[in-house]
Formats: sequence, C-alpha cells, structure tokens
Amino acid sequence: MIQRLAVLGVGLIGGSLALALKEKGLVGEVVGYGRSQANIDEALSLGIIDRAAPTAAQAVIGADMVVLAVPLASMHALLAEIKPHLAVNAVLTDVGSAKGCWVSDVLAVWNDQFPPFVVPAHPIAGAERSGAAAALADLYIQRKVVITAHQKSSVEAIERVTQMWQATGADVRHMSVEAHDATFAWTSHLPHLLSFALVDMFSQRDDVAHLFDYTAGGFRDFTRIAASDPTMWRDIVQLNAPAISEALAAYQMQLTHYQTLLAHQDWQGFAESFNKAKQTRDQFLPLENH
Amino acid sequence: MIQRLAVLGVGLIGGSLALALKEKGLVGEVVGYGRSQANIDEALSLGIIDRAAPTAAQAVIGADMVVLAVPLASMHALLAEIKPHLAVNAVLTDVGSAKGCWVSDVLAVWNDQFPPFVVPAHPIAGAERSGAAAALADLYIQRKVVITAHQKSSVEAIERVTQMWQATGADVRHMSVEAHDATFAWTSHLPHLLSFALVDMFSQRDDVAHLFDYTAGGFRDFTRIAASDPTMWRDIVQLNAPAISEALAAYQMQLTHYQTLLAHQDWQGFAESFNKAKQTRDQFLPLENH
Repeated sequence: MIQRLAVLGVGLIGGSLALALKEKGLVGEVVGYGRSQANIDEALSLGIIDRAAPTAAQAVIGADMVVLAVPLASMHALLAEIKPHLAVNAVLTDVGSAKGCWVSDVLAVWNDQFPPFVVPAHPIAGAERSGAAAALADLYIQRKVVITAHQKSSVEAIERVTQMWQATGADVRHMSVEAHDATFAWTSHLPHLLSFALVDMFSQRDDVAHLFDYTAGGFRDFTRIAASDPTMWRDIVQLNAPAISEALAAYQMQLTHYQTLLAHQDWQGFAESFNKAKQTRDQFLPLENH
Repeated sequence: MIQRLAVLGVGLIGGSLALALKEKGLVGEVVGYGRSQANIDEALSLGIIDRAAPTAAQAVIGADMVVLAVPLASMHALLAEIKPHLAVNAVLTDVGSAKGCWVSDVLAVWNDQFPPFVVPAHPIAGAERSGAAAALADLYIQRKVVITAHQKSSVEAIERVTQMWQATGADVRHMSVEAHDATFAWTSHLPHLLSFALVDMFSQRDDVAHLFDYTAGGFRDFTRIAASDPTMWRDIVQLNAPAISEALAAYQMQLTHYQTLLAHQDWQGFAESFNKAKQTRDQFLPLENH
C-alpha cells in the first residue's frame, strides 16, 4: 500500500501506473507534476491524478513513492530539484529505457553516494501513443518491467518497487544495469538505429518518391520504428552510446561478411545465414508465421 | 482475350492470375504445369486450371499466352525446355522479382537474340502464403505490376501483357530492367538482407534466448521479413547481386556515418538524421502513424 504516490511526468507510462494502482485500491493519493498544463488538466479530469503540484519539489513532499517518468534528458535537473524535498520514508524510482545514465545522474546529484532508497526500473511498454489521455489501467498486464537495482539499493526499497509493479500485473524481472543496457542496445536501440538509417538514406536520394512508390508491406514493417519520436531516440543514443556503438560494430561486421559472400559469389553462405535467421525467428517468435 | 493460357508454376502468383482472368471471362482455357502433383491436383479441383500438362513442353503447345511463375533459379532450364514448342502467336512473360537475370536467361537460350514475343514482368504481390490453395482472384486489384520490356520486345507483345495484367485490376507500370532491379534492391532486397543479418547475428550469440525474451513490438516488425523463404531470398541475392551490393555499400556508409557521430558525441547529428527519417516516412507512408 502506497500512502502518497508522486508521479513526475504524467504521460502514457506514469499515468498508466497511477491508474493501475488506483484500480487495485493500492494507493491513497496520487500527486502529479508535469510541464504541460493541458496534459495535467487532462490527467486531473480523467482521474489519473488526485492533485496537481505546481513544482516537482512540491509534488514529492510527503510522498512515500516517487516515480520519475520524464524523458531521460530531463532526469538530472529533476533529481537535483527534488532531492532536498524527499520524505524520510520515500522510495525513488524511474521508468527510463536506459539505466546506466540514470544511475550516473543519481550519483552526480548525491555526490557519488548512491542512496539506499533509490531503485532504477524500466517498464517495457509500447510508446506508440503518448500523453495522459493515452494512459490505460491494464497497460502493464503481462508486460515486462526490468528492475536494475544498484548494489547500494536497500532490500526494502527494491521490494517496494517490485510489489508496486507486480500489482499492475507486470512480469517483474531483475537485471544488472550493464546487462540491461547491453540487452536493449541489441533488441531495441540497434533496430531503431538501423531503421532510421535506411529511411534517412532514402530521404537523401533524388528518386525518394519513386522508391517509396515501389515499397510494399515488408518495407513498411521494417521501417515502422523509423516513425518513432526523434528526440526520444536521440536521447537514448546519447545515454546508451557505448552499448549501442558495440552492437552497431558487430552488425557492421555481419554486413561486411555479406559483402564478402557477394564478392565470392558464395550463395550457399547466404542460404545458411537466411536459414539460421528464419529458424531462429520462427523458434523464438512462433506466434506469427511472418 | 486469351485463347489458351499456359501457367508454368501454379502457385499464389500464377494461380491468382489464372483465377482473375477466368473471373473476367478473358481466357478460353488454362493449362497448368508444376512439379508438385499434389499442388496441381489442388489447382484442378479449385478450378484454377482446366487441364494439367505432364511436361512444361506440352503445357505451352498451342498457348497464345505463356506465363512463367517458377522460382528464378528454375527459369533457365524451363525456357530451354519450352523454346522449341512455343506457338507462332505465343507471347511469353514471367513474374520474377529480379529482371536482369531473367533477360540473361532468355538471351542465353535464344543465342543472344532477344525474341520480340518475350516481355519480362514483375507483379508486386505478397508472398506470405504460397501454393495454389492460396490463390485469390482479387490478389492483384490495385497492386503494382512492373513491365520491363526489352528494346527488342514488340509493341504488340507488350500491349498483350499490359492488357492481361490490367484486366486483373493491377496498376501496370513500365520501367527499364536496370531501373527495376535498382529500385527493388533498395526497397525490398536490402531491407530483407538487413533483417536476416540481425536475426542471424542474434542466433550466433550464447544469450539468444535472453535477447528474444526482451524483444518487443518494434523488433517483431523489424524482423518479420527475416521469416521469409530462405531459398527464394538466396536466389534473389544471387540474381540481383550487383544492385544489392551497391545498395548495401551505401547503407554501410550510412552506418559508418553513425559510428562517426557516436565517436564525436554528435547527438545533434542523430537528431537531424532521425528527424529526416521520421518526416520522410510520415510523408510517404502517411496512413499508419507507426
């Protein structure tokens, strides 16, 4: 049971968390803060938050659970602002999709002493829609939430964040910060980069309209993620740069291997690579046949 | 009006063409040939073909329209087999997704003299399902069919192939063989290669199960085409290798550019690239927001 939940950034992610906890009767009061007054008004009228705070500092006063659900690039300033106002029993967590950078922000604000009440976390939920109006009480049912506890995080704080997310119906997992950032560099950040790269390359060509005229469903699927929010993805690249650079380098080696196969007219090599890829995808993502 | 249509390879593509022409009453008799007896029996029982021929040579006898709808790698042998048996009024066309290689096959079989009755063509239709059972009379409605007439193709033969495809409801376009192969290297072949490459790379890792456990919708979209038929795609890579190699090299330069941005911590460079990509995709594929 959370007495007072402070949600800083009441969008799809933060708003859905508040709605889920309210629906279960697991939260006393939800206080919201956000920079967009229109979005905060929407969150109030939808009953996502009970009260709007005029500043982040005021939002966290008296809250026993503080969730930072703002863009990664805004975390550092927000942490510095709320630090002096956190309650003695507060647990502080976030929802950022890269974790090493958030730990660095925490360390920078707390003079390199990671506080025991801080627990980094990352709910894996779609970002197709945004804003409080998109929030859903059932967004997290059977979705994964990765908690990347720090060595200095207390067992009690980890347990409170774990229970909060489990209450939303989420499948809570635990991982180190490094494993998290490497994993998502491969499964999410690299594919986004590759998709953006292809469409950007098209955009630079004189015949871009002709090319798009002859795209079909496969191209649409492959480039769907290139319609993602460019600012959010610039931030992710910046804030998970080492892991992304490593994954990208490995992918470049794979493409160099393909060029070698082409130069040697090694069509059997392509057959082997394509067969392995198809078998692997069919094995791990079997519910769709394409 | 086609008196006798010979369909060599009665799968989704060839079968759907036959069904569409039958539905419009534009074909007298459809003769089918294929290596799989079970598939041919299915095509007969579904009324896709009126008669099955025991050999390709016998299938084309007396046919005024001959459509080759077999895998690209099987075209050369088939052309050599049917050449002596084609009727004097026959028009010969194909449905291959790479055109330069088919023209080469025709030239090889006809001793470097491209025959005026031959017209290469490529219907752009999904290949998720296959076989005669998947054929649909309305498959080509509003789908593009690219005709890549040779300089030696006769106006009359081009017109007959054009009318045949227009009768199916297709949007018929004309392009040179070179423009066709370059266009589809960019819009189809390269994305398939990139998607296969990513999943193959995953398959080589010890933590492949862990990685797939943390994939989400974006990864599924990006890698959907990696579940395509490996043999068909090996053939396409082989048969459009020069154009694919060129597109791949340009893509590798784009990734090298990204590595340079990472090394220089040029996050604004990523913002510009991602913005251009998103704007371009939203402009040309506006019907989906993601």
